[in-house]
Amino acid sequence: MPLSDSVLREIEDLVGSDHLLVDHDLTARFRTDWTGRFRSGPVPVVRPDSTEQVQFILRLANAESFHVVPQGGNTGLVGGCVPTALDSVIVSTERLGYLGEVDRLGARITVGAGVRLGLLQAALRDTGWSFGVDLGARASCTIGGMVATNAGGINVVRYGMMRHQVVGIEAVLGDGTIVSHLSGLEKDNTGFDLEGLLTGSEGTLAVITRVVLRLRPNRPQVATVLLGFDQVDAAVAAASELRRNLPSLESIELMLKSGIELVRSAFGGGIPPVGQAEAVLLVEVAGDHGVDDELAAACAGIAAFLCVEPAVAIGSSARAGLWRWREEHTAAIATLGVPLKMDVSLPHRNISAFLAALGELDLPSVPIVFGHLGDGNLHVNVPNCMAEEGSGHRVAPNVEEIERTILQLVVSFGGSISAEHGIGVAKAHYLSMTRSPSEIATFRAIKRAFDPGNVLNPGVLLPVTIDKVSPPPVSSHDAQEVSPHREPT
Amino acid sequence: MPLSDSVLREIEDLVGSDHLLVDHDLTARFRTDWTGRFRSGPVPVVRPDSTEQVQFILRLANAESFHVVPQGGNTGLVGGCVPTALDSVIVSTERLGYLGEVDRLGARITVGAGVRLGLLQAALRDTGWSFGVDLGARASCTIGGMVATNAGGINVVRYGMMRHQVVGIEAVLGDGTIVSHLSGLEKDNTGFDLEGLLTGSEGTLAVITRVVLRLRPNRPQVATVLLGFDQVDAAVAAASELRRNLPSLESIELMLKSGIELVRSAFGGGIPPVGQAEAVLLVEVAGDHGVDDELAAACAGIAAFLCVEPAVAIGSSARAGLWRWREEHTAAIATLGVPLKMDVSLPHRNISAFLAALGELDLPSVPIVFGHLGDGNLHVNVPNCMAEEGSGHRVAPNVEEIERTILQLVVSFGGSISAEHGIGVAKAHYLSMTRSPSEIATFRAIKRAFDPGNVLNPGVLLPVTIDKVSPPPVSSHDAQEVSPHREPT
Repeated sequence: MPLSDSVLREIEDLVGSDHLLVDHDLTARFRTDWTGRFRSGPVPVVRPDSTEQVQFILRLANAESFHVVPQGGNTGLVGGCVPTALDSVIVSTERLGYLGEVDRLGARITVGAGVRLGLLQAALRDTGWSFGVDLGARASCTIGGMVATNAGGINVVRYGMMRHQVVGIEAVLGDGTIVSHLSGLEKDNTGFDLEGLLTGSEGTLAVITRVVLRLRPNRPQVATVLLGFDQVDAAVAAASELRRNLPSLESIELMLKSGIELVRSAFGGGIPPVGQAEAVLLVEVAGDHGVDDELAAACAGIAAFLCVEPAVAIGSSARAGLWRWREEHTAAIATLGVPLKMDVSLPHRNISAFLAALGELDLPSVPIVFGHLGDGNLHVNVPNCMAEEGSGHRVAPNVEEIERTILQLVVSFGGSISAEHGIGVAKAHYLSMTRSPSEIATFRAIKRAFDPGNVLNPGVLLPVTIDKVSPPPVSSHDAQEVSPHREPT
Repeated sequence: MPLSDSVLREIEDLVGSDHLLVDHDLTARFRTDWTGRFRSGPVPVVRPDSTEQVQFILRLANAESFHVVPQGGNTGLVGGCVPTALDSVIVSTERLGYLGEVDRLGARITVGAGVRLGLLQAALRDTGWSFGVDLGARASCTIGGMVATNAGGINVVRYGMMRHQVVGIEAVLGDGTIVSHLSGLEKDNTGFDLEGLLTGSEGTLAVITRVVLRLRPNRPQVATVLLGFDQVDAAVAAASELRRNLPSLESIELMLKSGIELVRSAFGGGIPPVGQAEAVLLVEVAGDHGVDDELAAACAGIAAFLCVEPAVAIGSSARAGLWRWREEHTAAIATLGVPLKMDVSLPHRNISAFLAALGELDLPSVPIVFGHLGDGNLHVNVPNCMAEEGSGHRVAPNVEEIERTILQLVVSFGGSISAEHGIGVAKAHYLSMTRSPSEIATFRAIKRAFDPGNVLNPGVLLPVTIDKVSPPPVSSHDAQEVSPHREPT
């Protein structure tokens, strides 16, 4: 049931008519997710400009029994910020744009949830400090969304995920309670870890309105190397050595021969610097000085694992020439048709065996795997899994079965079915593959503690059960539609 | 009301008579905390050897309405693991001694809650990996206790607190639910952050039975320097520069002239290497090679802040000669009489102003402050605050007032009343100084979700309210008694 006119009037009185969007064209960009796969029916969008306005909306939602779906930059990949039912309002954080001064002594900055990552990066320029998480979607994604999804990326091996950056938080819980803990202290053992719990909660516990972020030092000198290996397990062993011996390590990215060949056949670029290696690591280091020497010493230390000479690059264009092999994977895969994409992680000790087992599955096309090996995070792609139809793409009939088979394989090797993209609605029905009934029951108990009225983001993260207030009507989002997209990380 | 004989028999049937201790002499070491300040009446101690045995005890506690107080190495400083009422059993984790193989590829190790830190350190020797948190109490403190209290120490500036080390957890919640999430993956966005939430929960939500810990590389080459400054704010600014420019930084410890003079007058040792500096930083770096050059370059970069030449030490005995000035603070303070000790943290930008305001308070003796400046963590000591009486020490009448005044000052500067020691029972009545009513209400909601019967650690962390099941009888622990103790961090 859509929101009543009287509820809409209350919201309009709160934020003004410019910030309650009901026109279908104006709300369209909020109602379709970044992948194009998840779409909502005609729901309103409200743009509060303060924590108190968010609180008003959540109190109203509890009183009037409608749902609230928080949305940042709408760059998520699992349908976590698009409503699944018409009795919903999207709360866009885009006007929560507070940007504090850089606290240079403390290496902290306080920012509103709606601040875009690119804007934060610009604000930090020339301060000597940077932000530890970077994503391809930096122009669009918001800090609040990155916190809500515990975003990762290519530098987790050095700086950790988003959760490690959040040292203070302000949020409105599902029941309308404002919690504000913005002191941003490094050490503060005065109660439960609200920052960590709300980070990665995917909008199901609270609307995050403001955070204090840890900053990390600028590291102006950067060097990159491509390393070739005969076998995946040699690459995994070398990666472990590099994590141990290379303090300036910022990224360890994995590619496989199949992916590199695909990039070459799709986009040319000659023979890759590592020739016919089965597994390739792209390693990047950053520091204040001497990182090239440090990198050379570390490469010498793992020479026994290598099958070709390392290809080192220092200048930015030479480095880009190495990174292209990694970055063009997604586009190269898309040239084969619409792929099935999975974002998983595995214990390092099982990565080689997992890839061998994956290769033995009966799949419609050869899977292309790449990812952040430093964190055990693999992006598994099965090219050309979807059939085109009209303007969109439809899931081929057995895609769900393929996905489930691969995720089961991940779980059987001790892995996670979602490394950095989250659960959203896309994977909620898979959650029980990877988390036990008692863990899920505990998640539900936490959900009830924060959002007893179940107003926030129903159907996201926790699978809807029949005893829930409002199961999302299947027709309200079209899980059939899929578009190719550039990977944001 | 003590546990009934039938309950004790059920527990004895579970663990065997050797592991249910009821004799007052045998239980004495469990019933008196490390500071000597908190003591419990005659309660039994049970030593389960499995997660399932812990579950049995918690289910029984819910069914029979008694309290469970989990205890690791009993080295806490805030009375968090000694019962406050006789209807309690201490669950000692000392038999949960599982010690897994070092996962060298993943840089992980799985350990039981009862494993002592020193034993873990010994197991890691020669593996190339170390554990990121170290404490003076390493011979006694257990990993489970360190997790439950989110322990810190002197290397937080590089490796983070305990919460950052815990990448997998197994625990029995207050309601008897076992949660087990021991995959230990770096990236795993499949639900709420149970690891982070249980870390630092001080035994109020769950009994932690096993964890997967992140390991960090060995850094064999170590160098140390003492830096002298005319003013505290110069030391704070220099510390910020060092955090930015010195990737090998492991510790930044602060001392003040008053503390150094006290160490010298108590224990001699000649003129300290930094002469008459008002503020002194002890900085330590560690790496694989070239750390002395890196340290020298960083010291040159902050030369403008210094008032004397840096005193660098490389070899271990020379380094120990610098560290003694810091490490002997606690013992030197004790020579003046029994001190009032507080563990607080402050935003770096306010440290200098806080210390100036502290100096203007009307206190019975000059406060001696030292601590982990890299994290904004200060240990504030007011010497000779307690009067001796007989074999123990009694709190002087106005100590509570002094403590409250100083903690209020900390809060007024945006600080935390507990940096790394936690809240326990000692600071529960101060929690509302530093966390808002809505935060505390949220903590209570989390507590109810995990421990609806309120069986775990009543009176710890969350102040007891009149609607609670069993307010602790004041007579059951003697908050009057205080002994001097060596600081474990």
